[in-house]
Amino acid sequence: MHRNDGFRELDRRECLDLLTQVPLGRIVYTENALPAVLPVNFFLDHDQAVVLRTSGASRMARAVDASVVAFEVDRFDETTRSGWSVVVTGRASLVTDPGEAERLGRSGPLSWAPVEDGVHVRIEPELVTGRLLEDVSPAGTV
Amino acid sequence: MHRNDGFRELDRRECLDLLTQVPLGRIVYTENALPAVLPVNFFLDHDQAVVLRTSGASRMARAVDASVVAFEVDRFDETTRSGWSVVVTGRASLVTDPGEAERLGRSGPLSWAPVEDGVHVRIEPELVTGRLLEDVSPAGTV
Repeated sequence: MHRNDGFRELDRRECLDLLTQVPLGRIVYTENALPAVLPVNFFLDHDQAVVLRTSGASRMARAVDASVVAFEVDRFDETTRSGWSVVVTGRASLVTDPGEAERLGRSGPLSWAPVEDGVHVRIEPELVTGRLLEDVSPAGTV
Repeated sequence: MHRNDGFRELDRRECLDLLTQVPLGRIVYTENALPAVLPVNFFLDHDQAVVLRTSGASRMARAVDASVVAFEVDRFDETTRSGWSVVVTGRASLVTDPGEAERLGRSGPLSWAPVEDGVHVRIEPELVTGRLLEDVSPAGTV
């Protein structure tokens, strides 16, 4: 779709490769029937699930458990007006199994901010989409 | 809230100032009952509404008109693990008045990608929140 709008759609493999290049994304969910979004750092698990860590007492943790969420990562260059974005959509769940939590705790960097009573959130990569905006630099659009 | 988690909450004025520093944000909405998110460039109108431009035929334009959406902007430094994020939440509407559309068309840069049959989207800044993550650099969290 929209193949003449300057974007190229990315396939799942390209999207997953790009997700390993950026440490920060944004979890998109619903809270009190309103759209909500929060930037968080993350990593990909061996099965390509998005894993992040937050306070178990946070509003986000309560809102996303057992819900379908989106997770967005992008990188754009303001000078060339080009870049890419990837969105993972799938069910989020708090990791309650102690062994699994311990394994994830060893797997990578998990929070830039200090987290007390932390909990891991896993997002299943059910739908992975992305698009690339190439450097079109159309004259006169500024 | 969470005043000991490394974040400082920003007031509305601080948030609006930060929004003028970055040309790209992410509109967060609901499509087919699922959370959706799309990076877009934008500017602030004189009344602090978020203004962006997209194809009138796009799925996003159809999904957000007359709905409450969130618009997120952030800037983080991966090295110092510090930065800020701002979220504007409010009702979105497609601009249908020709005079208003013409005025907005003169007001600023509106799309990095070529847009045919473009339409302006305005997001009312009903709720503006933000937070600053200061450079805490805790040893040993990587």
